[in-house]
Amino acid sequence: MPLDHTAQGVYVIAATPFLPDGAVDTASIDRMTDFYLGCGVTGMTILGMMGEAPKLDPDESLAIAKQVVRRATVPVVVGVSAPGFAAMRSLARDVMDAGAAGVMIAPPPALRTDDQIVSYFAQAVAAIGPDIPWVLQDYPLVLTVQMTPKVIRQIVTDNPSCVMLKHEDWPGLEKISALRAFQRDGSLRPLSILCGNGALFLDFEMERGADGAMTGYAFPDMLVDVVNFCAQGNRDTAHDLFDAHLPLIRYEQQQGMGLAVRKYVLQKRGAIAHDTQRAPAGKLTATAKAEVDYLLSRLARTDVRASLIPTSAGVGQ
Amino acid sequence: MPLDHTAQGVYVIAATPFLPDGAVDTASIDRMTDFYLGCGVTGMTILGMMGEAPKLDPDESLAIAKQVVRRATVPVVVGVSAPGFAAMRSLARDVMDAGAAGVMIAPPPALRTDDQIVSYFAQAVAAIGPDIPWVLQDYPLVLTVQMTPKVIRQIVTDNPSCVMLKHEDWPGLEKISALRAFQRDGSLRPLSILCGNGALFLDFEMERGADGAMTGYAFPDMLVDVVNFCAQGNRDTAHDLFDAHLPLIRYEQQQGMGLAVRKYVLQKRGAIAHDTQRAPAGKLTATAKAEVDYLLSRLARTDVRASLIPTSAGVGQ
Amino acid sequence: MPLDHTAQGVYVIAATPFLPDGAVDTASIDRMTDFYLGCGVTGMTILGMMGEAPKLDPDESLAIAKQVVRRATVPVVVGVSAPGFAAMRSLARDVMDAGAAGVMIAPPPALRTDDQIVSYFAQAVAAIGPDIPWVLQDYPLVLTVQMTPKVIRQIVTDNPSCVMLKHEDWPGLEKISALRAFQRDGSLRPLSILCGNGALFLDFEMERGADGAMTGYAFPDMLVDVVNFCAQGNRDTAHDLFDAHLPLIRYEQQQGMGLAVRKYVLQKRGAIAHDTQRAPAGKLTATAKAEVDYLLSRLARTDVRASLIPTSAGVGQ
Amino acid sequence: MPLDHTAQGVYVIAATPFLPDGAVDTASIDRMTDFYLGCGVTGMTILGMMGEAPKLDPDESLAIAKQVVRRATVPVVVGVSAPGFAAMRSLARDVMDAGAAGVMIAPPPALRTDDQIVSYFAQAVAAIGPDIPWVLQDYPLVLTVQMTPKVIRQIVTDNPSCVMLKHEDWPGLEKISALRAFQRDGSLRPLSILCGNGALFLDFEMERGADGAMTGYAFPDMLVDVVNFCAQGNRDTAHDLFDAHLPLIRYEQQQGMGLAVRKYVLQKRGAIAHDTQRAPAGKLTATAKAEVDYLLSRLARTDVRASLIPTSAGVGQ
Repeated sequence: MPLDHTAQGVYVIAATPFLPDGAVDTASIDRMTDFYLGCGVTGMTILGMMGEAPKLDPDESLAIAKQVVRRATVPVVVGVSAPGFAAMRSLARDVMDAGAAGVMIAPPPALRTDDQIVSYFAQAVAAIGPDIPWVLQDYPLVLTVQMTPKVIRQIVTDNPSCVMLKHEDWPGLEKISALRAFQRDGSLRPLSILCGNGALFLDFEMERGADGAMTGYAFPDMLVDVVNFCAQGNRDTAHDLFDAHLPLIRYEQQQGMGLAVRKYVLQKRGAIAHDTQRAPAGKLTATAKAEVDYLLSRLARTDVRASLIPTSAGVGQ
Repeated sequence: MPLDHTAQGVYVIAATPFLPDGAVDTASIDRMTDFYLGCGVTGMTILGMMGEAPKLDPDESLAIAKQVVRRATVPVVVGVSAPGFAAMRSLARDVMDAGAAGVMIAPPPALRTDDQIVSYFAQAVAAIGPDIPWVLQDYPLVLTVQMTPKVIRQIVTDNPSCVMLKHEDWPGLEKISALRAFQRDGSLRPLSILCGNGALFLDFEMERGADGAMTGYAFPDMLVDVVNFCAQGNRDTAHDLFDAHLPLIRYEQQQGMGLAVRKYVLQKRGAIAHDTQRAPAGKLTATAKAEVDYLLSRLARTDVRASLIPTSAGVGQ
Repeated sequence: MPLDHTAQGVYVIAATPFLPDGAVDTASIDRMTDFYLGCGVTGMTILGMMGEAPKLDPDESLAIAKQVVRRATVPVVVGVSAPGFAAMRSLARDVMDAGAAGVMIAPPPALRTDDQIVSYFAQAVAAIGPDIPWVLQDYPLVLTVQMTPKVIRQIVTDNPSCVMLKHEDWPGLEKISALRAFQRDGSLRPLSILCGNGALFLDFEMERGADGAMTGYAFPDMLVDVVNFCAQGNRDTAHDLFDAHLPLIRYEQQQGMGLAVRKYVLQKRGAIAHDTQRAPAGKLTATAKAEVDYLLSRLARTDVRASLIPTSAGVGQ
Repeated sequence: MPLDHTAQGVYVIAATPFLPDGAVDTASIDRMTDFYLGCGVTGMTILGMMGEAPKLDPDESLAIAKQVVRRATVPVVVGVSAPGFAAMRSLARDVMDAGAAGVMIAPPPALRTDDQIVSYFAQAVAAIGPDIPWVLQDYPLVLTVQMTPKVIRQIVTDNPSCVMLKHEDWPGLEKISALRAFQRDGSLRPLSILCGNGALFLDFEMERGADGAMTGYAFPDMLVDVVNFCAQGNRDTAHDLFDAHLPLIRYEQQQGMGLAVRKYVLQKRGAIAHDTQRAPAGKLTATAKAEVDYLLSRLARTDVRASLIPTSAGVGQ
């Protein structure tokens, strides 16, 4: 089931679970996959930045991809960004052979001019082959590469195998509107737009025309509900639910710390056994953990999902 | 009344009001100053980035500073960051002569190593003179200069006239804890810490030991209340109020758009006559304005301040 | 005599002379102007980066510009780059009133996309007025802004008052060829191209179609000769002379040190009284000065100009 | 023969030869190794940036390393920089098992503060193991990471397995002097310093106390001679030889083009069969090739090595 432009809903960005000694936690990979499926996600994206992909060696990357693809009943997108095209091609071909639905490619930080960006993706597609559906990642806050709507249109037009935009420009609401306007005026073919940015603007991104979310917030079930409420036109309900989670979504936005928060919450929710990250990693202090616990306790007042989380003490609740 | 390390509360970062033709709107300067004072701010900071300082010519900067200092009944801090020390010195000496309480200095983007940063501020103090109290601005997200707690301690120790940190590192909660720990172990003298970052983390920043806020969110009265609730130990009340504003605070975080949102809301609240910015400026589309209006209408359900804002129609409401 | 696209030869980037206490050395301004004129330059560019423009306050900038314009018998271009358009406009209008031939504008470092760059220069021209001839500075190594040949063509086409490119892209030989090809195919109007980059590639830049040099190397008389030899088709002679200077040109390329080397040599050649820079400034150690002296002594074997420099001892010559 | 602090001479940065279709050219690997050995190099460094390491997949990297180690009669250093520590460890352990003398590690571009840099190398050594001798690469122009002499001293002191600095800071002459001064005052243990930067400052770097060169200029035999002349105190002779090559060394300094020039010259000298690079790659136009040919023809007047290069026509010589 190859990825195409009709993709919508929530493609959760999956963590990579590790054992306390840093080895890949294969048992938790299945548990986490089941957890995400239980949240109602329509797809999974693995080996992205949140998946600590650069910290894996190539054999580990491929093994993880195979395991998730085998277990998941939804399309799996695999991040294949690499410093060079040889490694990108190897991983892309291997994961597609293993049953992945598509791959995701981020631009390297050195790209500056429009032409450099357009040219890079042409070379990337030449490297992996024109038959692999792929997701264009647009994340200037971290990658420092800025793509205008016109440049995105050029890339999509030049490369028929580009079927989705992972939108995480910031600010980016007007960018979604601009791309949808291109489609209305006939200058851009259909394209799935899923939004990242830790979901910080998901409420309005949906209203601007996004097809869903692609991010790793530790309550993907909430993302699913918000996307559905928006699709149904229940604007106030969508915002009410979203706003209840916003204090925690905001807390996750601390660069270098966000993944630690996510893994901590995923562990508390039972999705993974350990919140271990490989080095280099931001660590949560005891104070930070208490802050997250406080946010979860406040969230539990309005969202039953948070109320199901065992407290830190873990007994007598 | 020179600025010193006991400063606390809310030093609002003031906008610079312009007429529709781009000229400085002197009438609105008084109106806005009165508005801020009515919000209960304990200080004002002018000619910062939010004040569009780089877009003013030197005569305008000095005239604005004089007008605000004359009107305000609270200490006024003036941003004097400049590409060179000659301009920094001129403005700093002039505004202090006019009655400012202190100045604020941001590091230029080229600084990288610890030694470069420490050396820059030594040169800046040599330029403006050791008698002017000053605020160290720590804003890596925009300035790209990263100062560790140890480097901040070195700067504060080397320069007795440094009395305040404008903290807007991101993530920065641990940085506040680290600086307060230095004070407890006797290695850092007393220092006021006011927090920026558009108030996105103000709730926890106060709990980590900050003395207040220095930011330009368009409801400084809410910031005042949150700071007071925190000071009184009313944790839940502080978070309840803060969380109600968080969707709008978050909306303001869109880089390049934030000031447009702020001026739009300040205009709606009657603080300034026009939301004009000088070029280059991010502009709010009609859709964006409608999004802000929607956020204000939701806010009005829980915070009476927002309910007092006339609707866009402005009549018959 | 306004600047136009026929400009050629050497527009020397002038230093700004200071007294040992950091005050502007007005006597040396005249002396330096006469020195440059004696070298055969066809124009002068003042208040550029090499002129320590950001370290001057606005009154000083204007006074220096007036003094040079009064003294010089060649067109004077004034750098007016500023963090904001108000200051840019003030200086541009004032120096043109004082008799400058044109102004030079560099892009601010934050610009990334092609559209941002094109838009910035449109705003700059709107600010200074469409009647002032101006030079587009293209210096990615320091400014971090990358303009493709197509973007430069767009800027030149959009803004009739843009008459010259200060070319210092690196590598940039193909860029000159691309722009000249645009002119041959009729898509770009006539444009003067003068080259910077400390003259490091001047030999080949001339062969690629440049009209001359705009840089501050301390032997502008050599630059004049190289430009002339190239114009006359004396390729080997041009390279012979250029190569003799290359060890020193190369030595000047040390970022942060280059200006110190230039002022040191200009002082030795009698063009200015002191090699003082305003802070922040790179300083030459005794070892570095000895290295420059050694390079000058080697140069003196082949270029009579260097042989006329008094030795460091400074007596009995 | 593990690498240690007594290393000196020329450790040439080796190219990676490719066939016209982009496959690794194994025949040329042996030919090139022999060529370098014939030039008198005292070591080889492979899989660096010039070796297009990020464009290889892991199996290719290891195979190339094994082949070179088998053939070379001098110590071989292998670049193992990687986005994550897992891949760095795998390659480092494997190449040491294959007989490499040591590895080279460059800092990732995101590092800013002194503490971040020191911490990164501690983690890297923990990853590869404390028993592998390694070279610290200091290349801020490309890597954007700035290490002060004090930070380098800290890294060397913290990590006994760090035995060499690849110095390519720019400007960097004073840095060599500062490090050697640390050694004279007893605060830094012995450390080999080999210089990169395309040899642009090798003449003075040797005089400042460097132990030799580690760079890929296409005439490593000239680098060997310059290093030897300097070691023997033949200052003028060293500069005379160096200056003859400077026009070509300078031409190679064009970022993004330098490797194309090097491979073109290496091919002309018979060291490799093809000048193919993998994408993305800068390409030499016909004009650029003619410029290199002209520089080689001028060089042939003074250095017999260049006179031995067949002309482009390749017949009748």
